[in-house]
Parts: sequence; C-alpha cells; structure tokens
Amino acid sequence: MSLVKPTHAGYFFGQSIITLAARLRAGSVTSVELTQAALDSIERLNPVLNAFVHVDAAVALAQARKADALFAQGQDLGPLQGMPIAVKDNIDTFDYITTYGSAHFDRFKPSHDALCVQRVREAGAVIIGKTLTHEFAYGPTGDRSLQGAARNPWDARCITGGSSAGSAAAVASGMVPLALGTDTGGSIRIPAALCGTVGFKPSFASVPLDGVFPLASSLDHVGPIANHVEDARLLFEVLAGRACQPAATPRALRVGWITCASFGPVDAELHQQVYQAAQQLFGEALQETDALQKIAAGMKDTLQTLQRAEAFAVHAERMRDAPHKFDQEVRERLEVSSEVRGWQYIRAQASQAQYKAAMARLFEDYDLLVSPTVPITATQVNARQVRVGEQDIDVRAAVLSHTSAWNLTGLPSISLPVGHVRGMPVGLQVIGAAGADDHLLQVMSQLFVPITGGG
Amino acid sequence: MSLVKPTHAGYFFGQSIITLAARLRAGSVTSVELTQAALDSIERLNPVLNAFVHVDAAVALAQARKADALFAQGQDLGPLQGMPIAVKDNIDTFDYITTYGSAHFDRFKPSHDALCVQRVREAGAVIIGKTLTHEFAYGPTGDRSLQGAARNPWDARCITGGSSAGSAAAVASGMVPLALGTDTGGSIRIPAALCGTVGFKPSFASVPLDGVFPLASSLDHVGPIANHVEDARLLFEVLAGRACQPAATPRALRVGWITCASFGPVDAELHQQVYQAAQQLFGEALQETDALQKIAAGMKDTLQTLQRAEAFAVHAERMRDAPHKFDQEVRERLEVSSEVRGWQYIRAQASQAQYKAAMARLFEDYDLLVSPTVPITATQVNARQVRVGEQDIDVRAAVLSHTSAWNLTGLPSISLPVGHVRGMPVGLQVIGAAGADDHLLQVMSQLFVPITGGG
Repeated sequence: MSLVKPTHAGYFFGQSIITLAARLRAGSVTSVELTQAALDSIERLNPVLNAFVHVDAAVALAQARKADALFAQGQDLGPLQGMPIAVKDNIDTFDYITTYGSAHFDRFKPSHDALCVQRVREAGAVIIGKTLTHEFAYGPTGDRSLQGAARNPWDARCITGGSSAGSAAAVASGMVPLALGTDTGGSIRIPAALCGTVGFKPSFASVPLDGVFPLASSLDHVGPIANHVEDARLLFEVLAGRACQPAATPRALRVGWITCASFGPVDAELHQQVYQAAQQLFGEALQETDALQKIAAGMKDTLQTLQRAEAFAVHAERMRDAPHKFDQEVRERLEVSSEVRGWQYIRAQASQAQYKAAMARLFEDYDLLVSPTVPITATQVNARQVRVGEQDIDVRAAVLSHTSAWNLTGLPSISLPVGHVRGMPVGLQVIGAAGADDHLLQVMSQLFVPITGGG
Repeated sequence: MSLVKPTHAGYFFGQSIITLAARLRAGSVTSVELTQAALDSIERLNPVLNAFVHVDAAVALAQARKADALFAQGQDLGPLQGMPIAVKDNIDTFDYITTYGSAHFDRFKPSHDALCVQRVREAGAVIIGKTLTHEFAYGPTGDRSLQGAARNPWDARCITGGSSAGSAAAVASGMVPLALGTDTGGSIRIPAALCGTVGFKPSFASVPLDGVFPLASSLDHVGPIANHVEDARLLFEVLAGRACQPAATPRALRVGWITCASFGPVDAELHQQVYQAAQQLFGEALQETDALQKIAAGMKDTLQTLQRAEAFAVHAERMRDAPHKFDQEVRERLEVSSEVRGWQYIRAQASQAQYKAAMARLFEDYDLLVSPTVPITATQVNARQVRVGEQDIDVRAAVLSHTSAWNLTGLPSISLPVGHVRGMPVGLQVIGAAGADDHLLQVMSQLFVPITGGG
C-alpha cells in the first residue's frame, strides 16, 4: 500500500502531536503559528468539507498566545499545550455557540464548558472551533444537521459517517491534529473509519459526560480522534484525568477475529483488506472466533431499545412543542423511539448486564477482539440504501452494525485506518476488555504504524 | 380508650415476644407448647379469617422440638428462638408450597428459602405456615388471590388491607406473635393499620429481597408485623442481619404532622383520632407541615409509573401465554401497566432521585414525620368505592394514598395501632429519615404503649 493523501488535505495531515510538541518546545514553531496553520487549512478546506460549524480566529489565537506565553515562562502543561484541537458541537463550550446540530439550539451559548473541554483547556490546548454533529448525534451518517452534511475528505460527494462527522473530517483532512468526539453506537469509530483516521471509544464512564448533550445515557461515551494511536492515548489521558498505567509484562497476545457474518454482511474487498491488515498486525496470534454469532442480534436489539427510550426521554418536550424544528429523519426516529415500553426498557437493562457478563467471560480467552469497524466504505451523502454483494442493505444499519455492541457492553474499542478500498478509507476495529483502555492503547500504539500517515 | 379485643382473638393476641422469650427461658412454657397454641388458634380462627394458606403442623412442631432441644442444651440464639412466626406467601420457603397468591404457581415448591427466611430460621424461629398475599402482591386490599380474600379480625365482612393480608390478620388476631410481610406501596403498613397491629417498612434495601417474588424492584421492601414496636425491632435486627445501633444522645424531637389534605381525603373521625394519638405521643414537639402538599401528586404519579413498568416486566410472558390464570382485576392492572413508555419510566427514575433528595432536605428540619397510615377504616370485602365526607373515592387509591410516598423515597416508616373508629382499628404512620431505622424503632418503642394491646 502506497502513501496516499486525500483530495483535500491541510497542514496537519498525518502529523503526530509528539513531533509537533517537540517542535513547540524546540522553538521551531509557536502555538500561534500552528493555530494560524489550522485556521488557514480550515479556510481553504471547510467550504468543501463542512467539518467546522463555528470557528473564531480571535478566540483561538488568544488561547495560542497564552500557550506561547507559558512556554516563554518555562511552564509546560504537557503534550497538548499549544495544540489546536476541534470539539464536536454536542459538547458545551462557554466561548463558542453550541447548537447540538439542531435548530432548537441555533443560538445557544452554554454558560460553562463541558468537564472534558475544561480538562483539555487546562492541559493548554487551543480550542479552534466546533465541528458538525449529526443532529443531536442521533444518526451515524453525519449528513443531517442544522448545518447540513459533512463531506468526506477522500471524496466530497460521500458521507463522513457520524455522528462525530466534522471531528473525523477535520482530523483526517489535516485541518487539526486532534478532535473530541462522542460515541453512542459507533459515532467516533464510524467516521474515523470512513475518513481514514484513528478514533477511540474508551470504557464506559471513564471520561465524564458532564456538559455533553445526552443521546442515550447508558451508552454515551466521549473520546479522541487523532492521526496516531499514541496521540489518541495522550488526549485520552487528559480526558480521563489520569495517566495511563504502564502495561503489565508483555506476554503472547490472544486475538480473536470476529467471524464476519456475526454482525451482518461485509463488503468482500473490504473484508479482505481489513483481514490482511489484522494478520500483518497480529500474525499467529490471530484466531477466528464465532463466539458472538449467537448473541449479535440480541445485542443489537438490546442497544436499540435502550437507545430509543433514553433518546426520547431527552427530547419529549421538544417533540411535543416544536416537532417541526427537528430534521425529518431524526423526528421519525424519535417518533418510533417514543413507542418503546417501560417493561421492555427494564428487560433491556437486564440484558445489557448479561451481555457485559458474557463479554467478561469471553475476555478470559482473548486479550483483544478485532473486526472491520464498518463493513462498507463511505456512501454518497443522503443515500440510504447500499448494495453489498447481492444484497441491498440499509446504510444506517450497516455502518452501525459492527460498533454498537461495544457501546452496549461499554468495552474500549479503537478504529485504525488500514488502507483503502476503491479509493476510500477502511478501518480495523480493535476491542479490549472492560477497563483495559490503557493496555489496548499501549499495545496498539506499539503495533500499529499508520499505512496512510505522513508524519 | 378501653382495652378491646377483636371478634376473633387467639392465644397470642397482644402478646410481647419479650414476655414469651422470658417464659421460654424460665421453662414456664416450651416452644412446642407455643407452636401448639398457634396451631390451635389457627385451627379455630382461620376458617373465618383465611389468614393462613398453608400450615403444616408436623413441619412446625419439628422446628419447635429443635428449638426446645437447643434450650435444653443451653444454646440461646436470641429472642426469636422457639417463637412461632408466619411468612407471607410471596416469600420463598423450601418446606412450604409458595403460590405468590397466584394460579400460575398453585403447586410451586421453591428449592431454597428466601434469604430473609433463612435468617429467621437461623435465629431459631418456628415457621408455622404461609399467609395469604394479594395475588402477586399487586393490590392493597388483600381480597383477590388464588385463595380468595383474607378477613379482618375486627369484622370478618371487611378487608384486612394488603397485600400482606394474612400476615397482618394472623398477628392482629393473635394466631402468631410475629409475621413477615412485604411492602411496595404500603403492603405491610396498610393491613397493619386496618387490622390494628404494628407494621414496619424498613429503609429501602436494608433487608435483602433474594427469594422474595418481585412486584416492583425499585420499590419492594421486606419487614416485620408484630404486636409491639420492640418486637418489630427485634425481628428487624434478624431480617437486616445486624444489631441496631444505640440511639444517639436524645434531644428534643422535631415531629412534622403532614397536613392531611396533602395525600388526599381523610375520614374526619379517623383524622381526629389519629391526630389526638400523635399529640399524646409527641406533645409540644408536634407541628403541622405542608411541605408535602405541592409534591404529593407528583410522587404518586412517579411511583405508579415505576411500579407499573417494573410489574409488567416481571409478568410479560405470563400475560402473553396464560392471561386467564390471573385474577381479572390484577390482569386489568397489568394490561394498563404494559402501556407505560420507556421514556416515561426513565423520567420517573430521575424524579425518584429528586424526591429522595427533597426528603433528605426536609429531614434536616424534622426527625420524624407523621400522618394517618390509611385515611379510612377497613371497607367491605370486594368493595371498590367508599364514601369519605361528601366524596365517593376509589378504595385502592385511598388505602395507598398515605403510604406509597415512603416506598418511592425508601424512607423507614412504621404503622402503630392507635385505637378504633366505629369499632375498626386505625393506624398512625411515623416516618424516619433515610437509613434512620434504628432511631425510629428505638424512639417509638420507648414512646408508644399499644392502646389496644393485651400482654
């Protein structure tokens, strides 16, 4: 596989924040210069990609000057200091309008930062703007929001995936080296895979959700999008408010490749590409497992029941008082969601606990599970059917099919860019045991060298 | 008020287990004799009262002989040793059929004791039989079950209240000195009040529910029914698996009388009787509070939403496969219960947390809250409307009206028999702060001398 660049690439394409942090400390670049490079890249690329929905150069440059002033005083807050970062627009920021992708909040200015934003700020990062979210994060395509559709850097006719649409497009295109996303059924990993970057959904509740607009409270996660696993790991440390624990003495990994049919149909060429990447990464350690085949459908139903009931609980008054302010597709999903019965929700909670227990047992046999992140490449904006093999399948169901089980069970999982199929990026998903975020990130940081990365 | 006895009274009427325990230890009575006295009382009274649904003299006497043998060996397991006790039929017992009051379980024999039964057994009590529960404990009248209606010892045409119908009737009539009940909206306190005995619902989760058939898992409680507060306290210690902590240095109590209109209409004569009893007990410490007036309706709605969804989650398959096996009234309640939406359940969970917080604030100003336990006296079996003042009101809603808030908020509350109105018992409810079970029981044990008690 050759090094390729997306049609639309900015200053930070493929850049590692480790390199950038070293350059900042060596004085060969300033935070103001990096911030200006991000602003220039956004100015050039955003009219096509629609990744950012609010950018304020003055606000960003003021933060950059503050970071540079700290460097000048010899103060070092760690690897994020002076680094431009994008924040998904369903995460509150006191200094940027925060719309949640919805007409209901078209002029909303939060009074406080979300706790995760506060932590990033305290680490010295420069919040350069807010990125497009699928309306209320309720959709995996990233093409329905107050601000329209985000566009894929590798082919602007195509979706980014979502709901962290703009954050993935912003990093994948090199507008910024880092971004925050949220993930309730795959919303970090899906656009990371479809845009060709790294997206990490941590263990449930490892990053606080205060100030993040809820989609479904038992499934919501905040996490990093970056060019490199190590960058994602450094941002995760800041988000989680703790340093990663050193990995235990390494021993032979046991890696389970999830039998592809388990979660639904997979594009054949994509399957081959991702499987080869997994073989290159894990070699002999990789073994097929069909342990999920029997429970995959139940997991999907359970997640859907939880997500629907919890999502409608967030929006009931808006659905009653101003339904016209919702995007039609989101409104229709919410109408269906209102129908879930209380007793079904209670059963789903019980099932969720059982699936978590089943995964704990499965991870006695494996250290990691792997699968394609998304079984198809990015489809055209607004397309809702796609042909996979001989089947016409629903785009939304397909893109969610391999990721949502790890929201239900709360396990850490990361999507890695492992090349291209028919010119579009594809992702390998690697899943760790509950709470084993540090191990997953450290192992994959050592093993994985981005195939498409610059650096 | 004069000492009166119910129409139907057995050996243990008004008896204190402290007196009985002393007699057992003095050798003036044996456990076999007490057990036989209970069996004789049951044989005489149960054909009228229908309090017990399963009694096995051989099983009971074997336990009694074991208790006597321990006494003979000088082994003392505490105040329950050798004491006859009744267990509500929604609590599993390995040696008695356990029907949950339902045709679905008409021949069910559990493989294990419920944990609370196990604890009572380990304390040396003699389990004399199982008492009638309203079908699946889903009703506060005690007149609908596989075994028909339980009957009030003061007037056998009237209900006992429920759902711990048989346990309250068995203690109030003197068939046994102690019984176990369960309480999801008032099911211990209501029949205790209507039958004229002491019923205590502990703090939520202070007594384990393992082996108790669920009605609504976020509202279910197990607790004691007894003739005296001190007896209830001793049984509570066994049920909770811990000794009560000595009360802190006593200071002037602050007692809030809940403005009667807060929870709905109250019979005028009953109000006067219960209020006078509260004044006698607490004197100057008693002050009216209208703090609950604004939130009472919301608390009731919240409890109903939680209870309905959770109850249907227990019975969904039975309602699908064998609806005819339910009592018609219970089936109709379950049909309504199936309609609660998931988002409403989620909202109710959030409201429950808010009401708990509101109660924590209220109990900064009060040590105890008091009210009538039930705003009416026992109605006729199967009656569903009752006249209170100028209003016709629903019997089930009325009997639940003053108790269910303390299931929602999980606070300890006790019903005390405080005399009679038109010949039927009435109860005073005393509510303590969250987790202050020991304080509530110790204070009321000191202050309260049963008005109707023998002993």
